[in-house]
Amino acid sequence: MAEEEQQVPERPKEAPKEGEAGPSKNALKKAAKEKEKAEKKRLIQEREAAQKQAAEGNDVSKEDYGESPMVGSKQYKPPQWKRDKLSDTGSKEDGSETHLRVVVRNARSQSAKLAFLDLRDGLSSIQAVIAASETLSRQMVKFASTLNPESLVDVIGIVKVPKEPVKSATIQDREIHILKLFVVSKSESPLPIQIEDAERPLPEDEKKIEEQSSEESGRPLLGLSTRLDNRTLDLRSMLNHAIVEIKGGICRLWTEFMWQNDFKQIWTPKINGAPSEGGSNVFEMKYFNNPAYLAQSPQLYKQMMISARYKRVWELGTVFRAENSNTARHLTEFMGLDLEMEFQEHYHEVLDVLEELVLHIFNGLKTRYKQETDLVRTVYKVEEFKLPEAGKVPRLPFSEGITMLREAGETLNDYDDLSTPQEKLLGKLVLQKYNTDFYILDQFPLAIRPFYTMPSPHDPSLSNSYDMFMRGQEICSGAQRVHDAEFLKKRMRGMDPPLDPDSLGFKHYVEAFKYGCPPHAGGGFGLERIVMLWLGLPNVRLASLFPRDPGRNIP
Amino acid sequence: MAEEEQQVPERPKEAPKEGEAGPSKNALKKAAKEKEKAEKKRLIQEREAAQKQAAEGNDVSKEDYGESPMVGSKQYKPPQWKRDKLSDTGSKEDGSETHLRVVVRNARSQSAKLAFLDLRDGLSSIQAVIAASETLSRQMVKFASTLNPESLVDVIGIVKVPKEPVKSATIQDREIHILKLFVVSKSESPLPIQIEDAERPLPEDEKKIEEQSSEESGRPLLGLSTRLDNRTLDLRSMLNHAIVEIKGGICRLWTEFMWQNDFKQIWTPKINGAPSEGGSNVFEMKYFNNPAYLAQSPQLYKQMMISARYKRVWELGTVFRAENSNTARHLTEFMGLDLEMEFQEHYHEVLDVLEELVLHIFNGLKTRYKQETDLVRTVYKVEEFKLPEAGKVPRLPFSEGITMLREAGETLNDYDDLSTPQEKLLGKLVLQKYNTDFYILDQFPLAIRPFYTMPSPHDPSLSNSYDMFMRGQEICSGAQRVHDAEFLKKRMRGMDPPLDPDSLGFKHYVEAFKYGCPPHAGGGFGLERIVMLWLGLPNVRLASLFPRDPGRNIP
Repeated sequence: MAEEEQQVPERPKEAPKEGEAGPSKNALKKAAKEKEKAEKKRLIQEREAAQKQAAEGNDVSKEDYGESPMVGSKQYKPPQWKRDKLSDTGSKEDGSETHLRVVVRNARSQSAKLAFLDLRDGLSSIQAVIAASETLSRQMVKFASTLNPESLVDVIGIVKVPKEPVKSATIQDREIHILKLFVVSKSESPLPIQIEDAERPLPEDEKKIEEQSSEESGRPLLGLSTRLDNRTLDLRSMLNHAIVEIKGGICRLWTEFMWQNDFKQIWTPKINGAPSEGGSNVFEMKYFNNPAYLAQSPQLYKQMMISARYKRVWELGTVFRAENSNTARHLTEFMGLDLEMEFQEHYHEVLDVLEELVLHIFNGLKTRYKQETDLVRTVYKVEEFKLPEAGKVPRLPFSEGITMLREAGETLNDYDDLSTPQEKLLGKLVLQKYNTDFYILDQFPLAIRPFYTMPSPHDPSLSNSYDMFMRGQEICSGAQRVHDAEFLKKRMRGMDPPLDPDSLGFKHYVEAFKYGCPPHAGGGFGLERIVMLWLGLPNVRLASLFPRDPGRNIP
Repeated sequence: MAEEEQQVPERPKEAPKEGEAGPSKNALKKAAKEKEKAEKKRLIQEREAAQKQAAEGNDVSKEDYGESPMVGSKQYKPPQWKRDKLSDTGSKEDGSETHLRVVVRNARSQSAKLAFLDLRDGLSSIQAVIAASETLSRQMVKFASTLNPESLVDVIGIVKVPKEPVKSATIQDREIHILKLFVVSKSESPLPIQIEDAERPLPEDEKKIEEQSSEESGRPLLGLSTRLDNRTLDLRSMLNHAIVEIKGGICRLWTEFMWQNDFKQIWTPKINGAPSEGGSNVFEMKYFNNPAYLAQSPQLYKQMMISARYKRVWELGTVFRAENSNTARHLTEFMGLDLEMEFQEHYHEVLDVLEELVLHIFNGLKTRYKQETDLVRTVYKVEEFKLPEAGKVPRLPFSEGITMLREAGETLNDYDDLSTPQEKLLGKLVLQKYNTDFYILDQFPLAIRPFYTMPSPHDPSLSNSYDMFMRGQEICSGAQRVHDAEFLKKRMRGMDPPLDPDSLGFKHYVEAFKYGCPPHAGGGFGLERIVMLWLGLPNVRLASLFPRDPGRNIP
């Protein structure tokens, strides 16, 4: 393999940054047009020169570049060289050889003898240089400079320390001088959306896309539907890689806590012969010759598992809600993080565990997922998430929340449910008073909670139930549940409209509490909502890989 | 608290064990009837004595037993005493005090002054003794002896080493002498099924329940539907606790491997606007005003995530199959363990990882879940699961499987699919030849694999696909996938019947491979099937908490 020193050419000067002094818009436009014209002429000349050279058959590099046959599995030979991780390149020695399989973000021809490639892998990117020399043909430079963006390539090259840091790459103090270059999977051109456009934020208001695009970088801000229609490409952005990493991080931190605290994983059914929570917002389906319904939560089943003596159970599963709401915070399908556990004397034992769990997740995100969090926050600016000092999470009685809102001018009765704006306002008031974005409301009015909620012994109009909030939006709803069959029946019959404990959907559930069930409480979290509120994303759809809403179930 | 020494009475003699010499059946019957009669008389006398004593108001224990009010959460006081774990009792010192919340499996009166309780918590059980004394009233003994099975109780007592090991309990060298006893949640009586019956195996043939019941212990063998109709009680059996523990263990071992090997968790949609695998066996549902379909696998989406450059992805999610098959190995809803990963040169790189993953799971089950595995195997007898020596998993070409079957007398063409009996036979042949219950068939005929399978470069009638087997039954199906859009379209159009790459269900999927996608392969496992085959369960429904089949979606 050729290892001789390559000439390191100067990198082309970048255009002045936003905020720096620069020529007027018109002058820039004119210059750009002229540049384009000159460029075209130059490219034609170069192509002719290269064709001439190729025709003469004197391509010294012809073994060193080209399109590989489809990796379709010839006779198996273990690879003679193992590829390096691009993310490790930043710490490689000047002059060392590297083998990479990477994506071409962008290829730019500087002259017939020189081209630059932006290469990417995961959250890392680097600049590569290809320069013609006695051992590297102009044809090969040309081949490199005409690669379509998003093509996947194998690169063998020399790692070099550049004269100046490469600001456009995440690895700024290294670059790669290409020796060999093979296309593994060629991308078609043009792309339906540009990955660099997917790196930028959603337009604030989808209707104002036009105005926004002309104000900013000159490129359109991609609207949500365009992104979702091209979701596989959209998901390639580093922004989305970071979001997916954080979502996985929350699941991982949750799972760790479950393992450490003796919770048992369960898998409850998603197809049910009867609606599980009273019949509204439920998707109906055809189950062979009968109707059936998609689970709106694992609520009834996780309680049955407690009655079956599993003590502490958890599930990470899909939840279906047939809500015809086209808001920025509703999905018809999302991931539910659910847990349920028995307690001995008081449901606050469970609330203690829930608090510890959520703090474990938030602290883990702050330390182990800092890089990804920071990356997303360069795009969606949001205040750092404030955790309570000394881990002391405010656990406010619902009545205190009402009082705080009244003092702020809201008109509310003692047992009224809070509207979304009121919840958000309360979030701000709590932040001012307690300096935390995470807090709990406890002892909700009984009338606004489901039938399986245990009433409060302090006030029969209240209940042993709680919500957890991030930045003034609910992420978890939970309660002590009624664990006595007779009392449960009474509660069901007293609902408005009454529920029938003997009906198909409830019979087995009510039965479960006849034969000695421990007192228990639990809660359910919406995974996508935690992601959205942690990162300050403007829409929960951005936290779902392939979001489902009333208007979308493709792709 | 009273801590004086209690008199340790002799435990009643147990009936001779099966296989031991004993009186004839008729003699036993007669003796039992007489005993019952005498017992009734005695109980009546005792009740009268106790009523007399109670009427006189001289119950010295009246503060030490009774029914606690519903744990419904009085003013919160952290419990003054923390309860112990029953499983720790086996290592407690003779004479030490213990506080427990446990289930009464069974209460037996020995005399007016003496009763025994079988107590259980999780996979542990212990015998408790309650004996009348100067400080413990006969009324309290009576209260204990009449507790309904499955009631949940708080017990304060003294841990003692019994004179003889208690064979009926898992903790045999300790018993508990009760000082205080409170019912936390009372069970109704009678129970619709007995938990001890749920500890025994399914009848071999559901039709022969009657005959089997008279031959065995005199109690009926519980049939599958009775168990599933009373699933919450059925799930209380230690047998089912062990199965759930093992199922969770497989998920945990899987997840650990995913974390250690840089796989990223994904969450693919379960509601799709078009069927994902060609339209057969798919559940249709109503999505607002349009039809939609439940995901039969995350196949298309996990591949799209590879194209979106996530390198290695995994999902543990629900899979729906509208198969109208009432066999012992089909469910309409099960947990799919899926993974997909890019590779560099050959799909065997992926197969290597899959092998390592499965061995990690099997070895983990053998070491970390031995207790639970052994417990289940006392009920369902099955040979120890044989792993290949030195971790060298046989990776047989499909053609070799055909040859082995032909040598064993089967009539098969080179490209025929194997029937279930043939698969099982091959399992036996492989076990004989290679001494392992786990092996792989590689290079399946192309015609019997899905459209997204990469054909083999060796033989266009074969494909780069594989199945993994346990005890001759498939647990995983996987392959290299076509990663080039043009080739994929050609494959789809060549299917019989042809598939339309431009249709709603496939358009975005095919698009995903237009813009530079790495070569990749993967596989999907059925979680319940691994549980079933590991434990030799006779029916996959036993590996599902609330199984779904064409005849059942309740409870």
